Amino acid sequence: MDAESFRRHGHELVDWIADYLEHPERYPVLSRVTPGQIVAALPNDAPEEPETFGAVMADFERVLVPGLTHWNHPRFFAYFAISASPPGILAEFLSAALNQQAMLWRTSPAATELETVSLAWLRRLMGLPDSFEGVIYDTASIATMHALAAAREAAVRSARSRGLAGRSDVPALAVYCSDQAHSSVDKALIALGLGLDSLRRIPSDDRFRLRPDLLAQAITADRASGILPVAVVATVGSTSTTSIDPVPAVADICEREGLWLHVDAAYGGVAGLLPSHRHLLDGVDRADSFVVNPHKWLFTPFDLSAFYCRRMDVLRETFSLTPEILRTTETAPVKNLMDTGVQLGRRFRALKLWMILRMYGARAIREHLTRHIDLAQQLAGWIDDHPDFERLAPVPLSVVCFRWKPAAQPALSADALDAANQRLVDRANATGEVFLSHTRINGRVAIRIAIGHIKTELQDVRAAWNILLQLRT
Amino acid sequence: MDAESFRRHGHELVDWIADYLEHPERYPVLSRVTPGQIVAALPNDAPEEPETFGAVMADFERVLVPGLTHWNHPRFFAYFAISASPPGILAEFLSAALNQQAMLWRTSPAATELETVSLAWLRRLMGLPDSFEGVIYDTASIATMHALAAAREAAVRSARSRGLAGRSDVPALAVYCSDQAHSSVDKALIALGLGLDSLRRIPSDDRFRLRPDLLAQAITADRASGILPVAVVATVGSTSTTSIDPVPAVADICEREGLWLHVDAAYGGVAGLLPSHRHLLDGVDRADSFVVNPHKWLFTPFDLSAFYCRRMDVLRETFSLTPEILRTTETAPVKNLMDTGVQLGRRFRALKLWMILRMYGARAIREHLTRHIDLAQQLAGWIDDHPDFERLAPVPLSVVCFRWKPAAQPALSADALDAANQRLVDRANATGEVFLSHTRINGRVAIRIAIGHIKTELQDVRAAWNILLQLRT
Repeated sequence: MDAESFRRHGHELVDWIADYLEHPERYPVLSRVTPGQIVAALPNDAPEEPETFGAVMADFERVLVPGLTHWNHPRFFAYFAISASPPGILAEFLSAALNQQAMLWRTSPAATELETVSLAWLRRLMGLPDSFEGVIYDTASIATMHALAAAREAAVRSARSRGLAGRSDVPALAVYCSDQAHSSVDKALIALGLGLDSLRRIPSDDRFRLRPDLLAQAITADRASGILPVAVVATVGSTSTTSIDPVPAVADICEREGLWLHVDAAYGGVAGLLPSHRHLLDGVDRADSFVVNPHKWLFTPFDLSAFYCRRMDVLRETFSLTPEILRTTETAPVKNLMDTGVQLGRRFRALKLWMILRMYGARAIREHLTRHIDLAQQLAGWIDDHPDFERLAPVPLSVVCFRWKPAAQPALSADALDAANQRLVDRANATGEVFLSHTRINGRVAIRIAIGHIKTELQDVRAAWNILLQLRT
Repeated sequence: MDAESFRRHGHELVDWIADYLEHPERYPVLSRVTPGQIVAALPNDAPEEPETFGAVMADFERVLVPGLTHWNHPRFFAYFAISASPPGILAEFLSAALNQQAMLWRTSPAATELETVSLAWLRRLMGLPDSFEGVIYDTASIATMHALAAAREAAVRSARSRGLAGRSDVPALAVYCSDQAHSSVDKALIALGLGLDSLRRIPSDDRFRLRPDLLAQAITADRASGILPVAVVATVGSTSTTSIDPVPAVADICEREGLWLHVDAAYGGVAGLLPSHRHLLDGVDRADSFVVNPHKWLFTPFDLSAFYCRRMDVLRETFSLTPEILRTTETAPVKNLMDTGVQLGRRFRALKLWMILRMYGARAIREHLTRHIDLAQQLAGWIDDHPDFERLAPVPLSVVCFRWKPAAQPALSADALDAANQRLVDRANATGEVFLSHTRINGRVAIRIAIGHIKTELQDVRAAWNILLQLRT
């Protein structure tokens, strides 16, 4: 494809994408294809001869578009609602063309330094101090893995060189989080060689917040058994109910016990942009590390996870390695991003965060966040006012968990209610009008509506509610 | 930014990118900014009010473009030369707009199944059997980490649940690779809790290939010391010289010893597309896993690393975890990509691989690869024919390692030659015309020219050579 063809097809694609963004209503939010349908519709082998852009786009529309679940849709309410905002999409386009690979400062000074700048902007918008240095990873799962690797290094002498296996000087290790924490903590501990058994899932309170008293007890019990406590992961905006752990009390314990405190604020962190909600980040300034995902609730195309650390030296000591081919000599000290983790190559992700923050500006971003929170409160109000629905968790941010529980059928068993609510979610999704997901709260099935797409308005939330009202049986 | 503004700015950006691709000669290949220059040129805080696309692009051109090192430039010869080809750039643009997050099959059937299809296409183009299942990761570093995590699980009972620490039933572990293997192996072992000391870097032969006899000896010695051998990483296209380890002999050893064999073919794997070079992949069909990076030598914008595994069940058993919020019920078995690793979220990366394979077709891709290999052979010939230059390694693929060694100054010390060659690289890069990197071979500084950009032609390699001829002193 020469430059002129690129120009022509690029313009065609801009129009396709503009139409796509303008008319989300053309598509069912949740894909309706059946498993294997797309594989079956495509050839077994790559073509020997080139095909035209038109032919490829025709197959894209015919075969792939029906297989899309439309995450970039204002009626996507499942998991966490995310947005690829227009400035973010343009930035990704530009980033792909530039093909920066920011392993070393000199292999992309722009990507390296813009990462510093845009992460500082975001940190300051959240009201968090300069003592945190930032780095961009792909996902919060990778960020949390790196946080816990640094925690492991801080707790176990020479883990980097000597590892954990076959060492009589290293006892069993323990990491703590609430029973609401994300599965990325489990996966990080698998990866890091601590194992799932090292994780203590501390019970949460009636608002799904980690109980500091039980945390302190668990640490004491582990120490008494000869187990070495390593780290605590607190959550600001848990996956199921968006509960907020009491970070100040957890920080007290971590400081007293000498444990690494990592805060998973992947979803909730951006609430710190709002003066009304900044208190949710209380205590995060005392964490050793925290993670917030602009690709969740900051309108940034997936992927961009912002990791902040007060002890980046420990992380660098854990992972920094410079083979000869990557040795450089600069006139001044430089930051080489490859030193901060497993991945050597890094895309120019900062560009999209920078363009989004500039093209919206902080005020408009706050307005979007506030609108989402207000919409969640309205939905919670409708649920609370309805005799046949029951809210199952507080709504500190923009996610609402509830269930259908008909007043006229008080004898329905818990299992029957679970089945009915799961069915209700499935039927709502089958309309193609909305996509909701479920969770379990205190063991029972809950309908979960996550509000966070940049174009989601009252009418969209109202539509989801009306669908549930119509389909309940 | 509304849809109409997106459309307008999208068209502007298409033209900017088309001009960029058409006129690489406008830019010095290696950025000339000084450390801190970009940070200093940008404000400390995000703006409160929105800025226009024009203002952002003006700053992009003024501040960031000088800070780009132009990886997408036909005279980028450093590290490995990569390409963001036009179809790949367009696919990334589309992928950003769709914002697919393929953690579960249902959250993007298209991304999930196109990953299966496009990875099968690539695997069959390389002549490798259907017994390999594929998954796309961001980088080969992450792929190798997952391969070794699966190897650890296969070797150490219950590593997933019980980890490695504080276990009297787990001895010290060992992993083997050549002294030429990539630093990602070291980083994986740090992450996985095996530690750097667990890595045995086996000496390579005079062509920089792992010596199977020494590998076998090392394994035997470790077993005799009560150390548990876990895995061998063989390399097809090593980072420094692109040497090719003798995979069949290594596979013999791994089969005999019951070790996991992972093949790092991140750069070299695509040579399997060429009938003339397919023998370089001999034995890879017997590996437990291998990785090849389309973002290296297959014209794919960074990032897309293709990981293939014959024992994906072990990898899934290591990492699969399904919290309630991610439980689904489909009518048929589905592949949920989140089960294959640490990362939960996954971008729609398969789209670019699919579009590249279709829009070029296999024949044209083979022609590009053949041209790069031929160019490297020509350069090697010029070097071999020149009295003042010395080639330092064989050229099995498209990378040439050599040094200036003037015939008229036979008394120059090894250190003086090192310094002179490092200086020559630096001076060549300072011209802005080319970007080369260096390596060390048998302890001595080598100039390294990596040919791999899709637009690199004879004139570009000739230009690099002429610059070196002019600047040698």
